[in-house]
This record gives sequence, structure tokens and C-alpha cells, in this order.
Amino acid sequence: MGLKSHPLDFYQPNIVSTFSIHTLGCGSAKPTLRHQPSSTVIDYRGNLFMIDCGEGAQLAFQRHKLKFSRLGHIFLTHLHGDHVLGLPGMISTLGLGGAGGKMVIHTFEDGAKILGDIFSFFARDLPFKLEFNIIKPEEAVILETDSFHIRTIPLAHRIPTVGYVFEEKSKPRHIIRDMVDFHKVPFSMINRIKAGEDFTRPDGIVIPNKVLTADPSPCLSYAHIGDTAYIPGIAEKIGPVDLLYHETTYLNCHKAEAKNRAHSTAQQAATVARDAGAKALLTGHYSSRYKNDEDFRKEALEVFPNVILNREGLVTHLD
Amino acid sequence: MGLKSHPLDFYQPNIVSTFSIHTLGCGSAKPTLRHQPSSTVIDYRGNLFMIDCGEGAQLAFQRHKLKFSRLGHIFLTHLHGDHVLGLPGMISTLGLGGAGGKMVIHTFEDGAKILGDIFSFFARDLPFKLEFNIIKPEEAVILETDSFHIRTIPLAHRIPTVGYVFEEKSKPRHIIRDMVDFHKVPFSMINRIKAGEDFTRPDGIVIPNKVLTADPSPCLSYAHIGDTAYIPGIAEKIGPVDLLYHETTYLNCHKAEAKNRAHSTAQQAATVARDAGAKALLTGHYSSRYKNDEDFRKEALEVFPNVILNREGLVTHLD
Repeated sequence: MGLKSHPLDFYQPNIVSTFSIHTLGCGSAKPTLRHQPSSTVIDYRGNLFMIDCGEGAQLAFQRHKLKFSRLGHIFLTHLHGDHVLGLPGMISTLGLGGAGGKMVIHTFEDGAKILGDIFSFFARDLPFKLEFNIIKPEEAVILETDSFHIRTIPLAHRIPTVGYVFEEKSKPRHIIRDMVDFHKVPFSMINRIKAGEDFTRPDGIVIPNKVLTADPSPCLSYAHIGDTAYIPGIAEKIGPVDLLYHETTYLNCHKAEAKNRAHSTAQQAATVARDAGAKALLTGHYSSRYKNDEDFRKEALEVFPNVILNREGLVTHLD
Repeated sequence: MGLKSHPLDFYQPNIVSTFSIHTLGCGSAKPTLRHQPSSTVIDYRGNLFMIDCGEGAQLAFQRHKLKFSRLGHIFLTHLHGDHVLGLPGMISTLGLGGAGGKMVIHTFEDGAKILGDIFSFFARDLPFKLEFNIIKPEEAVILETDSFHIRTIPLAHRIPTVGYVFEEKSKPRHIIRDMVDFHKVPFSMINRIKAGEDFTRPDGIVIPNKVLTADPSPCLSYAHIGDTAYIPGIAEKIGPVDLLYHETTYLNCHKAEAKNRAHSTAQQAATVARDAGAKALLTGHYSSRYKNDEDFRKEALEVFPNVILNREGLVTHLD
């Protein structure tokens, strides 16, 4: 289907995607009536992964009709309040359910310490297991499953900060059913055929794999580059992702302040998207001083052609 | 003008009151898309006093068009998350302004400890002075000014909890301008006349105070009885306030559960209002299980005639 985004209130139930990005909050430090603090949820084949949890994220989560029982991992980019302070309330609320299971919070060591203290006070006796996975501000794969992995990239903010890249692993080739039936490939061989093997029939004739299979679906990827100053060399570390969220706290007219506060302008974010070879750029973390979000889109479009203007309630499908 | 309440979206700028109650959140532990966690702001002659600060209170504060620079005191009833977890975010946001001044948080000793730890981590270098006033779960006057005092009443919840009563002190009598001019009362005497003294003219004739003054405006009062089990004897401690907020987490059909969880039913809240001789009852802290808030009003009305059904955005004027 290709990249497509729509606001929640235009939700189209006939869109079925395996990888989508829900924007719960895309404001910056000072929450306003237009923009909430940072929080994003990745829906990957029905499993939910939250990146950052600003105040109000639990309500936005409900507004997006997401299911808490599907949420197993929360990734914090850094320990500024506007990215974290919705977590105590959300964990408390989750504690009221009887869900069981496990929740893993990926954060730095000092985050695990202070959050642990807060949960001990305000969210005791949780019905699920709460674990911290201690990460470091470095390049590393921090989570890996059969179908995807998640890696960190160190960013340049005022305190230790990472970006996250979600990448699907290479997928099995698609079986061409008619051909497999025609050549009487036994069921026990199917996984090997999917993996790319040729098939040797009992009469000795070798059927090349490309006759039996079609190319697999492309591997999708999403990079989440939160609060950071512009890092020219980061594009290479990110790679040609399908969707790049890169913070656009400022417009270029405040470029000096952006640098001083270790944030980026829309132009800089677009430059990273262009240099990384990303398919699309998702904006966000707008400073509350700006009244017209369209200005972020306009500025980014001068550098990069495919800009998705972020806002609360936006759902972006990668397939 | 007498007691009057209106929702924010029916705000009437011609209402000028000296004492009003803003409902920022009147839900209970589990926030929903209908009700936010607990927070109330008292506007007394332009000075703001917040009681409890559930998640999202800072945004509701903005929605009510209240000014952070007018907020100097925050009173916590108890240390459950749905009454407290909006505070770290709000204090962080306040720290982004350059307001100066002082903010006092009234809470128990363990609240000061955990909140102090949280602020040290997430809200360093505040431009204003942040102080804790340590309270205890007992009857005490915790704040007193020339015009009002605030006292605590211990409640019966699962952890130490207090209610707060805001009471105006007796006010000076109103000068009858024409009579004061006629009897040539010197300006230097006016405060003594307001305090009730008679006036002796230079010719020896005594003018009784009641000729020179009219009765003062009545002393207004508001009691905030947050999370608590029903305490029959509490009515006497509260007294005949103008407005009693008394939590109504449950309906009477769940009376046993209310007792078990140390909460009250709408019927019990109305009983307290009736026994205290309150002029009006304000409901709230609705359990998320109920879908029709009107049921709280109906149940309370069976016991007490003047019930104000609370909701987010409600502003109730005491005068």
C-alpha cells in the first residue's frame, strides 16, 4: 500500500497495515492546548512499542484506541520531564488492571533509579512484572526478535540521549502456490524453499528457486531521532529508512538558539532525511513559540520532498 | 450574587466573584476520556490555591485561563498517584518561566521526600523558591492571612488523608457613606467605625455604630473533603460551609465496596452536606465504572436539596 498517514478522526478501518506509527504527543517542553509532550507508539503486527511517555500519554493512548495489554516495551530517549513524566501515571493505571505479563522500560541507569523510586511510592503491588533494560548512549542492538531488531544511536542533546531505529529483518520469499503444487514440493521442504533453496524433484530435475517463489516483501524500517542538535554524520548511521521522525523544535530563523539548546531546525531535520535516503520525514517536538505548524513543513520541503507534518492523533502506515 | 456555577464554555465575563472553585479534574484513579484525575483550584480575590494535582492538571489550568503567576499554594490531600502525579510536570513547566516568587506545597513528610527527589531530578534550577509545608493528618490551621484561614480535617482513607476548609475571617462592617459625611466622622476614625465602635461627636453626642454602618458581607467558606470513607461525625467538624465538595466515588448500590476501598457514596456525601448544614454539595471523584454522572445527582438529591453535579471545566462562584 505504501506510506500513508491520516488523522485519528479520519480513521479508515479498511487500512490494514503491519507497521504503523501513532503520534500521541509532538509538542516540546512546555505543553500547550495544541500540542502535548512527546510520546509515540509503534504498532508492529499488533504488538505495541512506546517511545517516550510525556504527561498525558496514557489518555492519548486511549484516544488512539490502542490496547494496554498489547504494550510490552517502553523506550525512553532521555530523561527530560516532557519525555518521561507520563510514565508514573500510566504505570499506576496499568496497575489497576489485572493484566499480568511483563513490561520492559528501556532507559539509562539513572532513569531506572529515579523511576524505580517513583513506582515504589506511587505504583506498588503491580499485577505485572516491571523490568528495566539499562541502555547506554551508544550504537547497540537492544532488542531482537525473529522478525525485527531495535538499535540505538547516540544523539547530541544536553543530557545523554539516544535515537531508536526499528528495522525488519529480511523476510522469507513468497511461495508461488501454483508452481509448488505443480512440481509437488513436499510440505516439509516449504521453509527451505522460502529461504531460497532450489528444489530437486524425485526425477532429478532441479527447479530453480525463482520459479517457485517471488521476491519477499520489502523490509520496513522506522527511525526515531528525538531531541538532538543537528549531527551531519548521523544520516549514515540511520540509513535509508522508510520513515524518519527527526525532531524539528525550531525554524531556521532560530538556528543559533537551536544549536545552543541542542535542538534541530526543520531545515536540519530535512537535511538528515535527504542525506540518509529516507523515504519520508515526520516532523515534531515543536517549540510552543510557533503558532503555525505549516511553517515547519514549508521549511523542510525546501530541502526534502516528502514531509509529513506531525500532529497529535496522526497515524502513519509504513505499508 | 449567591452560589452559581457554570461550565467553562458558558463563561460569562460579567460574573465578578471574589471566591470561586474551578474543577480541573473530578475523576478517580483510572483516568478516562470523560474524567481527569483530581484537581481543584480556588480563586480567592485573584489568588489561586490548588488542591491536588492529578496528571493533566497543568493543561486544565491553562484551559481555565488561570494564571500560573497567581498560584502560590498547592495542597495535597494524600499521596495517591491520581492526586499528585500532575505535579512534577506542572512544576517543570513553571520552571521554564522566569516568574520568581515562591511556591508552597502542603503535604505529609513522606510526600515532601519523594516529591523533593522527583523535582531534584526533573525540575532542577527552578527560578522560584519551592517550599514544603509539612502537614499532619489532624485538625489544625495550616495557613492564615488577614482575610481567611485554611484548616485541615483528618479523613478515613487507606493512607493518611486530610480534607481542607477555607474560611473567610469576619469582615469589617460596611460604612454608610452619607451618614459618615453627615456626622463629619474624621478619616482617621474610619477603621475603628468599621470594626464596630460608636462615634462621639465634638459636641458630645454619641452616634451609635449601627447608624453609621451596615452589616458586613457574610463570611464565605468552602470545604474540600477528598478521598474518604463516610465519617458520620465529620459534619460537625466541617460546619455550615457555603459549598462542600465531598467525594462521591460510588453509588449506594456499591456501598459495601465503597466502605472496603475507604470511599463514599453519593448518598453518604449528601448526608454529610445535610448534617453539616452546608448550603450546597459539589460531587466528584467518580469511579470510571459509571457511565451516567446524573445518577450521582439523583442519589444525592434524595437526601439533600442543593446538589451541584461536578464536571471538568465547571466554575462555581460562592458570591
